[in-house]
Amino acid sequence: MRECFELRDADAGGRIGELTVPRAETTVETPALLPVINPNLDTISPRRLAEEFGAEILITNSYIIHGTEDVREQALEEGLHEMLEFPGAIMTDSGSFQLSEYGDIDVTTEEILEFQHAIGSDIGTPVDIPTPPDVSRERAEDELATTQERLEVAEDVETGDMLVTAPVQGSTYPDLREEAGRHADATDLDVFPVGAVVPLMNDYRYDDMVDAVAAAKRGLGADAPVHLFGAGHPMMFALGVAMGCDLFDSAAYALYARDDRYLTVRGTRQLEDLEYFPCSCPVCTSNSPDDIRALPDREREEELAAHNLHVTFAEIRRIKQAIRAGNLLELVEQRARAHPTMLDGYRTLLDHAAQLEGSDPVSKGAFFYTSHESARRPEVLRHHQRLDRLETPESLFLTEGEPARGDEFDDSWRVEPPFGPFPRSLSKSYPLTAEVPERTDRAALEAAAEGICRLVEANPGMDVALGHRDWPSEVLALLPDEVELIDLTVA
Amino acid sequence: MRECFELRDADAGGRIGELTVPRAETTVETPALLPVINPNLDTISPRRLAEEFGAEILITNSYIIHGTEDVREQALEEGLHEMLEFPGAIMTDSGSFQLSEYGDIDVTTEEILEFQHAIGSDIGTPVDIPTPPDVSRERAEDELATTQERLEVAEDVETGDMLVTAPVQGSTYPDLREEAGRHADATDLDVFPVGAVVPLMNDYRYDDMVDAVAAAKRGLGADAPVHLFGAGHPMMFALGVAMGCDLFDSAAYALYARDDRYLTVRGTRQLEDLEYFPCSCPVCTSNSPDDIRALPDREREEELAAHNLHVTFAEIRRIKQAIRAGNLLELVEQRARAHPTMLDGYRTLLDHAAQLEGSDPVSKGAFFYTSHESARRPEVLRHHQRLDRLETPESLFLTEGEPARGDEFDDSWRVEPPFGPFPRSLSKSYPLTAEVPERTDRAALEAAAEGICRLVEANPGMDVALGHRDWPSEVLALLPDEVELIDLTVA
Ligand SMILES: [Mg+2]
Ligand SMILES: [Mg+2]
Ligand SMILES: [Zn+2]
Ligand SMILES: [Zn+2]
Repeated sequence: MRECFELRDADAGGRIGELTVPRAETTVETPALLPVINPNLDTISPRRLAEEFGAEILITNSYIIHGTEDVREQALEEGLHEMLEFPGAIMTDSGSFQLSEYGDIDVTTEEILEFQHAIGSDIGTPVDIPTPPDVSRERAEDELATTQERLEVAEDVETGDMLVTAPVQGSTYPDLREEAGRHADATDLDVFPVGAVVPLMNDYRYDDMVDAVAAAKRGLGADAPVHLFGAGHPMMFALGVAMGCDLFDSAAYALYARDDRYLTVRGTRQLEDLEYFPCSCPVCTSNSPDDIRALPDREREEELAAHNLHVTFAEIRRIKQAIRAGNLLELVEQRARAHPTMLDGYRTLLDHAAQLEGSDPVSKGAFFYTSHESARRPEVLRHHQRLDRLETPESLFLTEGEPARGDEFDDSWRVEPPFGPFPRSLSKSYPLTAEVPERTDRAALEAAAEGICRLVEANPGMDVALGHRDWPSEVLALLPDEVELIDLTVA
Repeated sequence: MRECFELRDADAGGRIGELTVPRAETTVETPALLPVINPNLDTISPRRLAEEFGAEILITNSYIIHGTEDVREQALEEGLHEMLEFPGAIMTDSGSFQLSEYGDIDVTTEEILEFQHAIGSDIGTPVDIPTPPDVSRERAEDELATTQERLEVAEDVETGDMLVTAPVQGSTYPDLREEAGRHADATDLDVFPVGAVVPLMNDYRYDDMVDAVAAAKRGLGADAPVHLFGAGHPMMFALGVAMGCDLFDSAAYALYARDDRYLTVRGTRQLEDLEYFPCSCPVCTSNSPDDIRALPDREREEELAAHNLHVTFAEIRRIKQAIRAGNLLELVEQRARAHPTMLDGYRTLLDHAAQLEGSDPVSKGAFFYTSHESARRPEVLRHHQRLDRLETPESLFLTEGEPARGDEFDDSWRVEPPFGPFPRSLSKSYPLTAEVPERTDRAALEAAAEGICRLVEANPGMDVALGHRDWPSEVLALLPDEVELIDLTVA
């Protein structure tokens, strides 16, 4: 187990963890949101972030501080904590983002890490190369090699008890992301940003974002704290957490406020388009959109930023509570309906069900079947895998609900979409206690049929009959020929 | 148009309306939430409901007031508005609920309406018979006949400018609900509660609730303000509004608070199970669950009731904003994932797509395809109906994306799941500007195939080819034989 990170609870790929930040003499509970502070202008003061919004950690840019003389001198003299008046942990970025935007920066990893250490940062960052999506494989490989050299340099810089991040790059090549994750994990660095996903987010490519994170996670160990770098929209936090991300940073709360943009977990709204505030936060319960529109620029920006932060932190709490209750994927189900690209993201997450199954607890609250997508959840996959190992009688009657017949068989098992067959003795164990809709769907029936297939394959020679109620012929066609079919709706 | 109710905007079956309440000299914007006030104990004072939560209308029970001597005398003397200190509109219930619970009450419709008028109620209610679900048809018919007699009595009671409700009963018989709606609509009464749905809600029978509302709505005119009587859980407001309900009442906010129950749009939580507050309201941003648990009973109840109200009113605002923006069904999509029974409710709503299509605007923002269910939305149905009337050439090439070939044809149309075919000139008009996932699904493809079938049926003899990319054979099998199939992925 990595010393600085301890896992407390898990659901799907998501987890509640404790990141110990020795230099700040504090621990940060994850999933955590790091508000981005621009040292040159702050919309909401760091002190207010801590006191009013409960921020335990924030992030600021050491490259900007380094490049702004008076701020640099102040930071060196007072230290970041005093300068920003923030009691929690402070992470610093290195200028890699500026590198990716402007093509050139004038510090090395060594210099910037030493500077970060000198100004009292609690978590520092080397200068990696944020390779954008869709570049040539050659470029992705070359830049990854450079990033990896920089991480090795970073390991040797004298940074005391400051934690240091090891960004994971690799563009849109899953094998490179995985290799980058494995390399980073093998360093003695501490926190692992999945880098250069901002261009994916900007283009709503949540499917590709999920693939990038999944690949990085395969390389990183389960005990690595993962930062989804540059991901600040609350709409996608649940998806990111379910894939195994622990840290998010948000510049969006302030940048969007500056443009009169209003965050919601269903997407972004323009203030001018709102006739009602779809929110219960202190800003939205004591003001109407007209009230806010009537404010002078600076105050309007501050109120919108406060709303944006309330929504953002509430979603983080909602996610933590969902992990505790074991219904994180039910929350992802809802968020997936915010935009068709979020649905793509969720469908892609389910491609990685086998990977998520590894960390998913064997028992939780109740499994809720709430869409066709639910049929592909890790819990269903796990049940199917288990079917290979269950002991079976010589002849077996499978049926939904109570056995309507089956005296001729040695035993009768239940069949429940989407899980498929199971011995009645398991009826009260997770996930077979699932709540399912009365109106089932073909995805659930097909998954049940798949379960039957696995059971039959694992038990050649077993005599099997299925008593079903009006299953569609396409679903029945999925079953092996040796399964005898009995339509129970025919008297 | 009914004088007291004016429609301002619509989306699916939902609408924003203005209910004019002459006796209160006010108008109430709908959808509206009526907090239920128990005249004997109030957790949150009516004045605070108005000032802090923006309540424009509340409901209290005239039967309880009538039966409690000191309260009755005070109400008769001061009037309800002064007694409750509430500046908005006040609706009164009649004791029908008590009748359904205890089997007997000691007032007649005439008496209770006169009493309601005497105490200054703005919207009064006769004593109808709330027939529970699943009773015999005979009982449902008998009781409906009684309810209808009472409505006729109510028409003749002298009630000045007090509005009077006409409850719609009929148990779980859709034809009776529809007939009851038609009868109520023909009276000169003003507001139309769909009654006796509480037992359905208590059993999570959102599917049956939707069918009951749909039937009542078929009988009522579009201009009738509809009250979903006893429905106070914010999880189902969007579903109720999308079916055409305008008024909701909530006793839940207070009753649940008394039992340490915490409302969310994803369902109810027990305070003891919460480690984090999944909410951004003033209560939840300034307290942790531990803080609230540590409070004395009375204060804890008040804080929970305040949270419950914040969530409830925020959902009403969210729904109104969704109607304005034209994305109410996208909100219903999300709420449908709160519980499998809510999914049943949404799937049932889509059974009534043709009914909802009647009020759905022809143009809105962007249609978001966010689930298999989206394929059955009214907008898809409308496009299919339109296909019967579009002018077609003698030979037509249909294809996803750009025409890869088609020179041999008179024209080339686009095919987009879930809509199906349309002339390229319509590409920029609603709903064909839809945002759809990159990963389409079989429901979308099947709906597109259905569109092709309609087009072909409406144009016998037309020469049609479909250029598709790897459509599954089950979907292709839905197409008429005369459609030539060209798999564009085969070079
Ligand atoms: Mg893509
Ligand atoms: Mg049912
Ligand atoms: Zn807000
Ligand atoms: Zn709250």
